[in-house]
Amino acid sequence: MRYYEHPESFLSYAEVVPAVEEAFANHCEGEVQMPPKVYITFPDGDFRTMPAYIPALDIAGVKIVNVHPHNRAAGLPTVMALTVVIDIDTGAPAALLNATRLTDMRTGAAGAVATKYLKPVPNIVLGLIGSGRQAEAQLEAIANVCTIEEIRVWSRDPANAEAFLARYPRFEGRTGTIEQVCDCDVLCTTTPSRTPLVRDEWIREGMHINAIGADAPGKQELDPALLLRARVYVDDYEQATHSGEINVPISSGLYSRSMIAGTLGEAVCGKVKRMSRDEITVFDSTGLALQDLAIAKIALRHGASMEIPFP
Amino acid sequence: MRYYEHPESFLSYAEVVPAVEEAFANHCEGEVQMPPKVYITFPDGDFRTMPAYIPALDIAGVKIVNVHPHNRAAGLPTVMALTVVIDIDTGAPAALLNATRLTDMRTGAAGAVATKYLKPVPNIVLGLIGSGRQAEAQLEAIANVCTIEEIRVWSRDPANAEAFLARYPRFEGRTGTIEQVCDCDVLCTTTPSRTPLVRDEWIREGMHINAIGADAPGKQELDPALLLRARVYVDDYEQATHSGEINVPISSGLYSRSMIAGTLGEAVCGKVKRMSRDEITVFDSTGLALQDLAIAKIALRHGASMEIPFP
Repeated sequence: MRYYEHPESFLSYAEVVPAVEEAFANHCEGEVQMPPKVYITFPDGDFRTMPAYIPALDIAGVKIVNVHPHNRAAGLPTVMALTVVIDIDTGAPAALLNATRLTDMRTGAAGAVATKYLKPVPNIVLGLIGSGRQAEAQLEAIANVCTIEEIRVWSRDPANAEAFLARYPRFEGRTGTIEQVCDCDVLCTTTPSRTPLVRDEWIREGMHINAIGADAPGKQELDPALLLRARVYVDDYEQATHSGEINVPISSGLYSRSMIAGTLGEAVCGKVKRMSRDEITVFDSTGLALQDLAIAKIALRHGASMEIPFP
Repeated sequence: MRYYEHPESFLSYAEVVPAVEEAFANHCEGEVQMPPKVYITFPDGDFRTMPAYIPALDIAGVKIVNVHPHNRAAGLPTVMALTVVIDIDTGAPAALLNATRLTDMRTGAAGAVATKYLKPVPNIVLGLIGSGRQAEAQLEAIANVCTIEEIRVWSRDPANAEAFLARYPRFEGRTGTIEQVCDCDVLCTTTPSRTPLVRDEWIREGMHINAIGADAPGKQELDPALLLRARVYVDDYEQATHSGEINVPISSGLYSRSMIAGTLGEAVCGKVKRMSRDEITVFDSTGLALQDLAIAKIALRHGASMEIPFP
């Protein structure tokens, strides 16, 4: 059994994005085993168990990932992850990967895949609501699927938005009010909000939105009225209705599962697509085990690892 | 993050059995989070993901375990397991345990707990159908909860039954036909059979049976007519109806969930119990994540481990 301590340091989005795209295509083709993620809740957080098997990529395993909002005060990441890769032929654990940074990367990659298939124009102005690790991942991944003419960044603390721009001098950029940042072609929301931040009236026709932040019941970032104007793509029906951007509007009766346009896998396969230049599209990302296995697959090809005796 | 390569070598059934008993009591009291185990199937095997949290024991984690029937030909165990212990306060993976042998031990411990509460007499004749690792675990664990006056062993290959006896010279023992071995006080069935081996007419009133082998859909060891004469205790309703001894009779309409007498946890708590000396009782064991965490908890107190850098 091999352990990969920092697999992310050997990976680039240029290889991660196509790998995640291929896994979504496998998903569309019905070739992936991926039961819904299972939640265990603690007094101050939770952890989720995400098993899957992608026969076409010859990889199977489980990602185990927590969310502990108070960790930052203790100097630890809020989200930490470990992926256990299982040998398909023998069932033995074959590899362990520290998947904390891989989780950011595979989430960025899903946003990039959605942007590739749903963006309204080839060259985009990218708006970022939130300026943390997930915003970085969206920007770096999306830069692989289109030309970013400008980035616009909003954070609850303006200093964080300025610091974000300073980390990316290679992009034209500016900060602004949340309304100003919503004036863009592709918007990524990456906050842990439980009340809608993005108002319906700020979003003009033809925009695409990657709604990344909502990943648990009760979380939402978008005005439900906006969801009614848009065509919503989910990564997975079960997970999105349970814990994605649409979970709160579905619970309150404002949105229904039958209104979902399709899955990201179906967009990759060409089964569903943007219908017009004016359509608003939303990708509701909850994060799938297939993304974790797709990135694990390429991480195993690279990088230093240590041997752990098993069995 | 610490790795425990051979935690079983530091454990005795004398401490494992009470630890598993306590976890079943917590289960009865409704204090355990334990979603149903999740199956991923391969062409030649499967793996199961088993997360849980036992607040009273201050432990949470996931066991990942495979079943690959053809492994023996390749010199590997059919069943291998890894337990990931999660820090409740931070969500970080705190420890990894090679849980292959721990899985045998915790299964033996559950059989011992069932025997403690359901055995018809204080001193027993123990019958063993099957003579592999699971039979060894049943014997060694049960020896901690009652006096075993004699063991009787049957295996499909008589040489295996003789070899089993030779490994346990401290017990009075004999081999015999399957019918002769069924003449006992407590019977443990530990085979991977898909057709009933133990006939109804071989089982006399007042016996207790630990039905261990059936742990997946399609598996069964006992004549369904015997289940109708007996009071059946399960470890968990969902798992037992899906993959335990009762799964085939339920699928074929011969048995129904409403006929289950109760859970092992309820027996430990005193909510259900043997009603008479003549009652036949069956414990239908499928294996619960709470058993894995109970044994992990005591394994963490002992033994050598190596440091694995995380995060």
